[in-house]
Amino acid sequence: MKIAVDAMGGDYAPSIVVDGVAQALVEFPEIEEIVLVGHLDKIAYYLEKNNIANDPRLSLVHANSVVEMKESSTLALRGKKDSSITTCAKLLKEKRVSAIVSAGHTGAAVASTKVITRTLPGINRPAIAATLPGREGYFIVVDAGANTDCEPINLAQFAIMGEAYAHYFFGISNPRIGLLSVGGEDIKGNELTKETFKLLSDMPINFVGNVEGDSIFEGICDVVVCDGFMGNVVLKGTEGLAKAVLHWMKDVFTRNPVRKAGAMMARNAFKDLKAIGDADEFGGAPLLGIDGTCIIGHGGSSAKAVKNAIKVAADFVKYRLNDRIISRIQEAQLPESEQE
Amino acid sequence: MKIAVDAMGGDYAPSIVVDGVAQALVEFPEIEEIVLVGHLDKIAYYLEKNNIANDPRLSLVHANSVVEMKESSTLALRGKKDSSITTCAKLLKEKRVSAIVSAGHTGAAVASTKVITRTLPGINRPAIAATLPGREGYFIVVDAGANTDCEPINLAQFAIMGEAYAHYFFGISNPRIGLLSVGGEDIKGNELTKETFKLLSDMPINFVGNVEGDSIFEGICDVVVCDGFMGNVVLKGTEGLAKAVLHWMKDVFTRNPVRKAGAMMARNAFKDLKAIGDADEFGGAPLLGIDGTCIIGHGGSSAKAVKNAIKVAADFVKYRLNDRIISRIQEAQLPESEQE
Repeated sequence: MKIAVDAMGGDYAPSIVVDGVAQALVEFPEIEEIVLVGHLDKIAYYLEKNNIANDPRLSLVHANSVVEMKESSTLALRGKKDSSITTCAKLLKEKRVSAIVSAGHTGAAVASTKVITRTLPGINRPAIAATLPGREGYFIVVDAGANTDCEPINLAQFAIMGEAYAHYFFGISNPRIGLLSVGGEDIKGNELTKETFKLLSDMPINFVGNVEGDSIFEGICDVVVCDGFMGNVVLKGTEGLAKAVLHWMKDVFTRNPVRKAGAMMARNAFKDLKAIGDADEFGGAPLLGIDGTCIIGHGGSSAKAVKNAIKVAADFVKYRLNDRIISRIQEAQLPESEQE
Repeated sequence: MKIAVDAMGGDYAPSIVVDGVAQALVEFPEIEEIVLVGHLDKIAYYLEKNNIANDPRLSLVHANSVVEMKESSTLALRGKKDSSITTCAKLLKEKRVSAIVSAGHTGAAVASTKVITRTLPGINRPAIAATLPGREGYFIVVDAGANTDCEPINLAQFAIMGEAYAHYFFGISNPRIGLLSVGGEDIKGNELTKETFKLLSDMPINFVGNVEGDSIFEGICDVVVCDGFMGNVVLKGTEGLAKAVLHWMKDVFTRNPVRKAGAMMARNAFKDLKAIGDADEFGGAPLLGIDGTCIIGHGGSSAKAVKNAIKVAADFVKYRLNDRIISRIQEAQLPESEQE
């Protein structure tokens, strides 16, 4: 089990990333080796600080540049062949490592792995699987942002990958697959979802039909299938609204001394509430469909989030998720696609 | 000021709708006449109950059928020519009333008014303008569900209509218009938003560029422009997550007696929090771009929501919103569209 970590990815890189790697080295003895990829001059200090510079389970690979958040991923892929994320994708391609972890530019991680590492047989495009909190537990959204424009065949493949992930990673038997749309009835939706609905209905999966923006938070299904534009807006919208709610709570619970005292008494309730949506616990979302494992962390990842993303990567490899996806795709016998 | 109300629209129709009309008759003396449209046998009891059967400001128009939530709006429009919503659309077309209010089948309201009442000059498709709560106050989403598939020109028209609504209805001077997308940078988005971005950049509006799922809740703009599929998912997703949060709060604040006591002390804070997202306060969302006023209520509208929707209809007429939209559309000199 060897895992490469993009030391330069994320808002607080490389400092926080190295901290997370140091924690992972201690907590996960089953990981044979972590390969830290980044500008060696820039990470040296943090290696010393964490006292891992001479750790026998840590290797270093130099990468000269980093893809900045404002850059176009396609241009970056062409112009920065020596970036930390493309270097990670190459290590994965060469089977030097079996998984990579990055909290950097999501589009660059998707483009690098898609172009350099390549996709699994039967998969045209990889998809991000994000986990969101619902009333009755968590649910998975695929695609949460890898593909802005999709064809029905892509969504059908996302459904299979999401199902395998829900089943073999989270242990959900016969996961319920829903298609994100604007009405529960078959006839409702846009051109993409209407076509996709037909495909999903014929597949050997537990397809529960169209699901709506509100019902996905009510436990109507385990996997929500949608294009990456939609999925990204849902993911970020959830984040934005959750932050707004915390802001309003602060406001309403401090309006007078009695409320303040009550809030103080129940302060652990606020902590529990915050924990429900704590992205750091998950650490990262897998990019499903790549021939190798790629875990994408939140840009604002903490050291704990980086550590947990490394754990997700290790589990993803351990559970042989890609073998599961390949065999489920074969079973589904989806129509062929000419899409590159 | 004459307003038609669809007595049969909504989950609790006709009972709740008639209650709302009765309240409106008392509270809004500026409304000259309310025309209640529905199956007269089915509403007679509720008119008596509310003691408005002989109210001189109330008229009744019989409609034989109602479009059920599960029906396709296009089929319903063809098959049920005597439904309550098509009857409302006809009254609006004939200028018998200047506004209509319905909490029934949204698609049927959109299709009926679009086909029977017709759109304003320069508008190809009407759009629903929904109001959502953000950290720094409310923001408007256009289109919140009228059009599942859109062209860039539609979104450009939505931007103009949303701007006029924000300015003349809510009094926001120079409203900031944002385009819902997956990245703040110009280069990001899907095919629809990339083309729309160019159109909006050239228009005489305060276009603030792409806005993301999280930033719309942080007060980044006053009007969020998107297609109706996207807008519907955002609107319903907000509703679903808000309900999930209330569910979690109930859970975490009742886990032990100390927390329960604290929550009891701060109980008015919970009430204030609920009030922030109370859809009943708004009552309804206007369908912008119709040659007349059409206010669409939430399916689960309470009597208060119906009353407030009638108030929104009256204000919409009073502020001459449609004249504003027509002149702003003329000023914008958008490219012509062949779209029906």
